[in-house]
Amino acid sequence: MKILIVNGPNLNMLGRRQPEIYGSDTMESCLDDLRGRYEEIELEYYQSNCEGSLIDKIQTAGCSGEFAGIVLNAGAYTHTSLAIADAIASVSIPVVEVHISNVAAREAIRRQSLIAPVCKGVISGFGLDSYRLAIEALICGRQR
Amino acid sequence: MKILIVNGPNLNMLGRRQPEIYGSDTMESCLDDLRGRYEEIELEYYQSNCEGSLIDKIQTAGCSGEFAGIVLNAGAYTHTSLAIADAIASVSIPVVEVHISNVAAREAIRRQSLIAPVCKGVISGFGLDSYRLAIEALICGRQR
Amino acid sequence: MKILIVNGPNLNMLGRRQPEIYGSDTMESCLDDLRGRYEEIELEYYQSNCEGSLIDKIQTAGCSGEFAGIVLNAGAYTHTSLAIADAIASVSIPVVEVHISNVAAREAIRRQSLIAPVCKGVISGFGLDSYRLAIEALICGRQR
Amino acid sequence: MKILIVNGPNLNMLGRRQPEIYGSDTMESCLDDLRGRYEEIELEYYQSNCEGSLIDKIQTAGCSGEFAGIVLNAGAYTHTSLAIADAIASVSIPVVEVHISNVAAREAIRRQSLIAPVCKGVISGFGLDSYRLAIEALICGRQR
Amino acid sequence: MKILIVNGPNLNMLGRRQPEIYGSDTMESCLDDLRGRYEEIELEYYQSNCEGSLIDKIQTAGCSGEFAGIVLNAGAYTHTSLAIADAIASVSIPVVEVHISNVAAREAIRRQSLIAPVCKGVISGFGLDSYRLAIEALICGRQR
Amino acid sequence: MKILIVNGPNLNMLGRRQPEIYGSDTMESCLDDLRGRYEEIELEYYQSNCEGSLIDKIQTAGCSGEFAGIVLNAGAYTHTSLAIADAIASVSIPVVEVHISNVAAREAIRRQSLIAPVCKGVISGFGLDSYRLAIEALICGRQR
Amino acid sequence: MKILIVNGPNLNMLGRRQPEIYGSDTMESCLDDLRGRYEEIELEYYQSNCEGSLIDKIQTAGCSGEFAGIVLNAGAYTHTSLAIADAIASVSIPVVEVHISNVAAREAIRRQSLIAPVCKGVISGFGLDSYRLAIEALICGRQR
Amino acid sequence: MKILIVNGPNLNMLGRRQPEIYGSDTMESCLDDLRGRYEEIELEYYQSNCEGSLIDKIQTAGCSGEFAGIVLNAGAYTHTSLAIADAIASVSIPVVEVHISNVAAREAIRRQSLIAPVCKGVISGFGLDSYRLAIEALICGRQR
Amino acid sequence: MKILIVNGPNLNMLGRRQPEIYGSDTMESCLDDLRGRYEEIELEYYQSNCEGSLIDKIQTAGCSGEFAGIVLNAGAYTHTSLAIADAIASVSIPVVEVHISNVAAREAIRRQSLIAPVCKGVISGFGLDSYRLAIEALICGRQR
Amino acid sequence: MKILIVNGPNLNMLGRRQPEIYGSDTMESCLDDLRGRYEEIELEYYQSNCEGSLIDKIQTAGCSGEFAGIVLNAGAYTHTSLAIADAIASVSIPVVEVHISNVAAREAIRRQSLIAPVCKGVISGFGLDSYRLAIEALICGRQR
Amino acid sequence: MKILIVNGPNLNMLGRRQPEIYGSDTMESCLDDLRGRYEEIELEYYQSNCEGSLIDKIQTAGCSGEFAGIVLNAGAYTHTSLAIADAIASVSIPVVEVHISNVAAREAIRRQSLIAPVCKGVISGFGLDSYRLAIEALICGRQR
Amino acid sequence: MKILIVNGPNLNMLGRRQPEIYGSDTMESCLDDLRGRYEEIELEYYQSNCEGSLIDKIQTAGCSGEFAGIVLNAGAYTHTSLAIADAIASVSIPVVEVHISNVAAREAIRRQSLIAPVCKGVISGFGLDSYRLAIEALICGRQR
Repeated sequence: MKILIVNGPNLNMLGRRQPEIYGSDTMESCLDDLRGRYEEIELEYYQSNCEGSLIDKIQTAGCSGEFAGIVLNAGAYTHTSLAIADAIASVSIPVVEVHISNVAAREAIRRQSLIAPVCKGVISGFGLDSYRLAIEALICGRQR
Repeated sequence: MKILIVNGPNLNMLGRRQPEIYGSDTMESCLDDLRGRYEEIELEYYQSNCEGSLIDKIQTAGCSGEFAGIVLNAGAYTHTSLAIADAIASVSIPVVEVHISNVAAREAIRRQSLIAPVCKGVISGFGLDSYRLAIEALICGRQR
Repeated sequence: MKILIVNGPNLNMLGRRQPEIYGSDTMESCLDDLRGRYEEIELEYYQSNCEGSLIDKIQTAGCSGEFAGIVLNAGAYTHTSLAIADAIASVSIPVVEVHISNVAAREAIRRQSLIAPVCKGVISGFGLDSYRLAIEALICGRQR
Repeated sequence: MKILIVNGPNLNMLGRRQPEIYGSDTMESCLDDLRGRYEEIELEYYQSNCEGSLIDKIQTAGCSGEFAGIVLNAGAYTHTSLAIADAIASVSIPVVEVHISNVAAREAIRRQSLIAPVCKGVISGFGLDSYRLAIEALICGRQR
Repeated sequence: MKILIVNGPNLNMLGRRQPEIYGSDTMESCLDDLRGRYEEIELEYYQSNCEGSLIDKIQTAGCSGEFAGIVLNAGAYTHTSLAIADAIASVSIPVVEVHISNVAAREAIRRQSLIAPVCKGVISGFGLDSYRLAIEALICGRQR
Repeated sequence: MKILIVNGPNLNMLGRRQPEIYGSDTMESCLDDLRGRYEEIELEYYQSNCEGSLIDKIQTAGCSGEFAGIVLNAGAYTHTSLAIADAIASVSIPVVEVHISNVAAREAIRRQSLIAPVCKGVISGFGLDSYRLAIEALICGRQR
Repeated sequence: MKILIVNGPNLNMLGRRQPEIYGSDTMESCLDDLRGRYEEIELEYYQSNCEGSLIDKIQTAGCSGEFAGIVLNAGAYTHTSLAIADAIASVSIPVVEVHISNVAAREAIRRQSLIAPVCKGVISGFGLDSYRLAIEALICGRQR
Repeated sequence: MKILIVNGPNLNMLGRRQPEIYGSDTMESCLDDLRGRYEEIELEYYQSNCEGSLIDKIQTAGCSGEFAGIVLNAGAYTHTSLAIADAIASVSIPVVEVHISNVAAREAIRRQSLIAPVCKGVISGFGLDSYRLAIEALICGRQR
Repeated sequence: MKILIVNGPNLNMLGRRQPEIYGSDTMESCLDDLRGRYEEIELEYYQSNCEGSLIDKIQTAGCSGEFAGIVLNAGAYTHTSLAIADAIASVSIPVVEVHISNVAAREAIRRQSLIAPVCKGVISGFGLDSYRLAIEALICGRQR
Repeated sequence: MKILIVNGPNLNMLGRRQPEIYGSDTMESCLDDLRGRYEEIELEYYQSNCEGSLIDKIQTAGCSGEFAGIVLNAGAYTHTSLAIADAIASVSIPVVEVHISNVAAREAIRRQSLIAPVCKGVISGFGLDSYRLAIEALICGRQR
Repeated sequence: MKILIVNGPNLNMLGRRQPEIYGSDTMESCLDDLRGRYEEIELEYYQSNCEGSLIDKIQTAGCSGEFAGIVLNAGAYTHTSLAIADAIASVSIPVVEVHISNVAAREAIRRQSLIAPVCKGVISGFGLDSYRLAIEALICGRQR
Repeated sequence: MKILIVNGPNLNMLGRRQPEIYGSDTMESCLDDLRGRYEEIELEYYQSNCEGSLIDKIQTAGCSGEFAGIVLNAGAYTHTSLAIADAIASVSIPVVEVHISNVAAREAIRRQSLIAPVCKGVISGFGLDSYRLAIEALICGRQR
């Protein structure tokens, strides 16, 4: 079983940037932790600041037949990219939207997600644990 | 460790009502499943159709010192009850907002949550697994 | 044939309150009149000021198999209660929304009904005759 | 006693058009049925696709002194014609707004009625029975 | 010098309808008065409840070369007819928008005029004197 | 002279909850203070988290003939309950809306009061002194 | 093969009116050109300034079984007539919405089309060539 | 008979400022012209850029018993000053709102007048003739 | 102890203007009454129709060190003056916003106060008693 | 004569993705068909999921002097990219906006095109024929 | 070369008021610094809390022929005064809008400037350096 | 001291594109001019049409420790890119937002900047001088 974790713009700054919002852990230690915990799952990781590259990746993974699902933290594109939403709608594997911070408690523009309606579900606000919960959600969904 | 699961209006109809939206499993079987899976956690369950009773319960649980957190599916009150949001804000234990269906994919009024800004986080769209993921989230939060 | 008439908040004040809007007849005389007119129909009447109790009643009646339909004047909850709308959507018997006054001719907030989309139909503006017309509507619907 | 039934744009297509919304009965059979049921009432019927002609008819009927009331299904003009609303306001006989489908359950633009505030009341969602209920409403109103 | 006075929907009811808003004088006496006062001007009068007929009239008059200007009380179409606005924009003679009542003091929908931006100017609120003032305005405009 | 003080949802948490917003005094000490200060007035106190119970209480007090007025802090229901507004409108004794914090300085949703238009007046922002000022206001109103 | 071209309000002024927006060609020369180009197609042309007459024509043509499709330039009614939209929805032949000017580049009110959702498609901005492209579109649609 | 003409902010620049909008005539020549034409009327003129001074003037004139009415061009304050509206509402003599340009054809903010609802009527778009028409309107109103 | 009472635009008309809204008492008698009641407090009174003068006064009083607080009825500027709000924010003594009428029960524009967020609190709807209650509020605040 | 066809995000999935919306033909077969039909025109094709690359291409083509026009299906960027609109505005060759589906019949966000105001025109809803019609439109435009 | 610096409401409080927003330097020291730096430029300074006086000053300076430009910090009037915008539009010398704080980072109402559209440009957020940058901007503009 | 100048989409067209809005100077001559004027400052220049590349650049420069600040003209992304705003928020060096044209005087969508709230300040409307003023602003900020 293979799962793709996709991080959008500015998430390469995790751990270095605004720790009062995003915490001080890095994505690398998060991935190490997840790979240790889910040994039976192959986790691929991809990050880009470019909307188009994120679309490319979602399409490729979705059509490859290799992945059981995608864990997607689209960062600020969550709120502005209808094109990423279209990419998600065009693939048949489940995509779980995740956020590190509780976006509902931030500025008004972050309360609306353009991609949530075409995702399987949303997990938001649990720090880097949000990624782990999303993997759990994909496993649960598989077992049904 | 004790966790309270609170269900709001119409969630007593689960399994009998609109299975195309909410599935055909009942809350009872969900609770049995959760209690089997998390034997070390005491799960208390409460459901009411009354906004005021839900507030009473959240206050009592929050002040009792007994509970590590609350898993709250406030149903339609999610979108209309500022009073439940105030109750959540008035207690110091974490509250996780859950939804069975992916509310972002439904009518416009269900896209806005009045309670999310004062919750720890949100889990939405994974059927009854949303409850299990919320418990996981509370456990994770505890371990940090 | 059994029909449930449900009245929401403040409708217990009918006849005593704001006669320039609601007239001076009481609900009791209205029920007497209806029972005299429709002898073959058993009319049950329920009033509550509590949103949760109204939901309880709609659910119970809807699931009992006893009622051919519900005549519902949800009062001010018509405009604010998504939870009552969910209760109506969860039962399979027809619910007719009624109003004594012509709500379209009153304040802006009373022009939007959250429950109308899930009701069978709406009857508004005919004083206490609105209840009689709703019963007629349920009978008509039955005969088709 | 004489009652005028006025149908607005596209209602001449009833029975032939979009039966999933409007049913398959024609207005002719509906009128036959109503005339059979209310033998003591003279029912006049008028349909036009033209806003101005509908206004002409409402004015003429309203000023003639012949009619006890008007049953008006203004179709799409319900939502866009302030001029028909002005015509209704200018006559002193009661006008009952009717709709075949439950307009509250359709697109957003159909949720707002420009004419409802100047009508006696509204009956919506009961198929062609809406016309019969409107006649009942006019009779009730007369008896008070 | 020839001036066309055009009245829109329901203005044929003037003097008979809602005197608390429109006064009790009729358009006939108003025209008599104007013809007496402006003997050197030929006043043509046209009224229709039909948007299309009003457009026909404005086009015909505008293209005939006979008229020095049009005094237009478009009634409720003032607020809903972009088509009449287009007709005004398509003719080169000046059109003066008039209203009998002070529309700014009435419902919100009557505060917006779709036709005012393409008219020469607006005169509103002076009862039937609004027509006289509009003729004065056309004469003034001519003299410049 | 008898005055009813009604507190809505979460105000039973006063003194224990969010002291940075609501201060650290309890309602009990406030009532003691008021009873000491206004010995000639009988103060009855009622609190509920339930919208329906608040409506019941307002109706009962309003119809009993016993009370000179009601001091109402409806908490979050201030902003969402049209039904409480209807209850206030249905009684003839004056109701004074009070708030402990200056609601105008908080989130947008707290800037709109559904009940203020049917109250006698509003007192907001003076901590627990708001209750005392409301009683003064009722006494003043009586003396006029 | 027969195609109906329907022009709405003010389009009888084409070539005479606002050439900076609509060009200086007339509809007559456009029709001559089209008839020359598409000899195998019978083109019927209809223009009216009246919303009701346009509805009548669309209904008649749609039900006659004679026409392969309708090319409709509804002029200003594009943006205000829900009744024409209903007429289009009630016929089963394809209707292509056309505009001479690029309506998206004009005032805000012209950016919203009430009829586009029920048309086959939209062609806008190509001058009188928009009509030719619409005929091409109907031919293409036929060949599939 | 005495009439007060009040001009608001920037109208002291008339004739010098933006002639493409306001023309090149000055207020002085306009007043000369009006005084020549209406010899029996005493015209007082007042201009200020200060909202408060305009309010002072309206109050003083309104309470003096000297004036038959006020012709008010409030300039930009038309659209932003609720305080001037209150001043107009507080005096019992008629106030006619005038504009030199057709404000409906300018930016969105100039389409809304805060003072129109409390004025007798509005005259807009006729250049400096708007003042003359307003005086005519006051004379007409007097004669009724 | 010294308190400044500031009245904004049109409040110099109190007692003479619109008694159905503002009552028939004058500010002078109100001040006499207050000075009689609070002999230990020096009450300074200031009224102006000019926004800038009100700002000057608030700044001067706020910086003088003489005043314990300001009672401010900003009249219509309450709803339009961000500059007065800035003046209040720039002084450190408490300012209490008062209104004679219940502004929440009037037009929509009067429901929003630009100055309330920077005031200590709001008292609205108690006629001229609102001033007395505001003084009480300042005394209470002092005693804490 | 050379024409550039540009496809935006997710249009590389055509034929494989959501055939109920976009049909099952591929862009390749569409291009083959177009090249066969328009042998005298050189068709260049470009697709990218990246907003920036689309801008680069439009700029390069627009400045090269080689192309007679651009056929642009900007996909979801149609509704969110002001930057692509600026690129179109910066080139002097005509750009025709095309859509495969009738975007007016889809979600609200797809009803607004940010790029349409700077395009020559829009063709929407005719499946892959939309591309052919756009080429026709460019040819027509050339011939004038 | 002469430049006028105009400060609007509350800016006389600079250095004394809310230093966390506006810093602790006074306007006097700022002017001293600017006069030292730009010895060849005569700097005139004007401050008023009164909208009308600011308009008077802008008009006078603009028409005097003495000034090369105006540096304007209109304070809160930036967001509410259409009349100041009109004054700026009526003079032909360039006006540069400045703000000490970054208004875009403050409350929503401060994000909209009514005067920016008629200014030469905007400089916002650089503390008292904003004034120096505005003078630089006027010098640059002169040199072109 | 090193400063980075970043230009967003379409700004590579400067001098060639829409000179009536952006002038006819090129960015190259502007940079030459700036380098001549500020010999002590090393100016690095970067332009991209790609949102993701702009984010990459801002992050890299912000984290490198080399730059004293960034001058950013984000072009159309100013109004649509929350992701660029997040990148700015994630770096600790000051970013100055610049615009060549006065964006406040253009279309509505260009009046809102998503990035301004996280920038140090904004300079808009001074042609290519805006870049020079931004450098001045960064130097000033350094000196404090």
